Amino acid sequence: MDELPGPLGTSASLALRLGQAIFSISSLLFMCLDVEFYSYTAFCFLVTIMGLVIPWSLTLALVDAFSVFVKRPTIQPGIMSIVVMGDWVLSMLSLAASSSSASVTDLLKASGGSFCTAKLCSRYQLSAAMAFLSWFLSLASSLFNLWLLASL
Amino acid sequence: MDELPGPLGTSASLALRLGQAIFSISSLLFMCLDVEFYSYTAFCFLVTIMGLVIPWSLTLALVDAFSVFVKRPTIQPGIMSIVVMGDWVLSMLSLAASSSSASVTDLLKASGGSFCTAKLCSRYQLSAAMAFLSWFLSLASSLFNLWLLASL
Repeated sequence: MDELPGPLGTSASLALRLGQAIFSISSLLFMCLDVEFYSYTAFCFLVTIMGLVIPWSLTLALVDAFSVFVKRPTIQPGIMSIVVMGDWVLSMLSLAASSSSASVTDLLKASGGSFCTAKLCSRYQLSAAMAFLSWFLSLASSLFNLWLLASL
Repeated sequence: MDELPGPLGTSASLALRLGQAIFSISSLLFMCLDVEFYSYTAFCFLVTIMGLVIPWSLTLALVDAFSVFVKRPTIQPGIMSIVVMGDWVLSMLSLAASSSSASVTDLLKASGGSFCTAKLCSRYQLSAAMAFLSWFLSLASSLFNLWLLASL
């Protein structure tokens, strides 16, 4: 299974991690440069999860960068299990957070502008879309890593 | 990896599939024995996804029952890939559907009973909870099957 492109310690994995971090940070910024998100549980959930995804992705991006540019360490099954578990949990949570905030945004928008202005609504939408993209990349990472772990 | 309890064709898998079917059916019933769900995109999404999960789980439950009670067929990687793909897609979709309907229910409930009566709100909540349980069992099935596929 050495030909699979994305597991921990490769440049593809580094690209995936950086993408996750960028999308999570932009989702967080779209949501947080504004104070009204405290009123909605779904938006608070999204902010919490994005606040968890960012340090996780950045840490693993550092590991990948070290592995690509300096020296490739041997992959230990124990550490891989922790990475796979964390990836899975975070990707599930970010899927849940992004879909719930997307549906809440949809509901707020459908209620005809009485709960959010057009600018605010499109900001919520952008935030949910960024969270979806971050979930997608995180799912790709976790699939590659799970596959690597299972074939170790 | 023969000691893993849940892949396709075992009695544990049969139990998981039956649980998925039961929880999806109850989620669908809690949502559909009522006509107001058409107004909310998240609830329509939940109904659609549950309508996909039910035939999928029942079909695979039949396969499992045949395999347990009649004759165990040899597992072919091609068929297993299709099963794993379908399981993954459905479990992702049901997580998204259940979390979005849970957040919409929460928002409707927080708005103080002007959009749904207390009885209707608790019914939406029960439906979302059943969808979460169905997602959890479907995640377990797909993890077991993916693990089996990777170790084939």
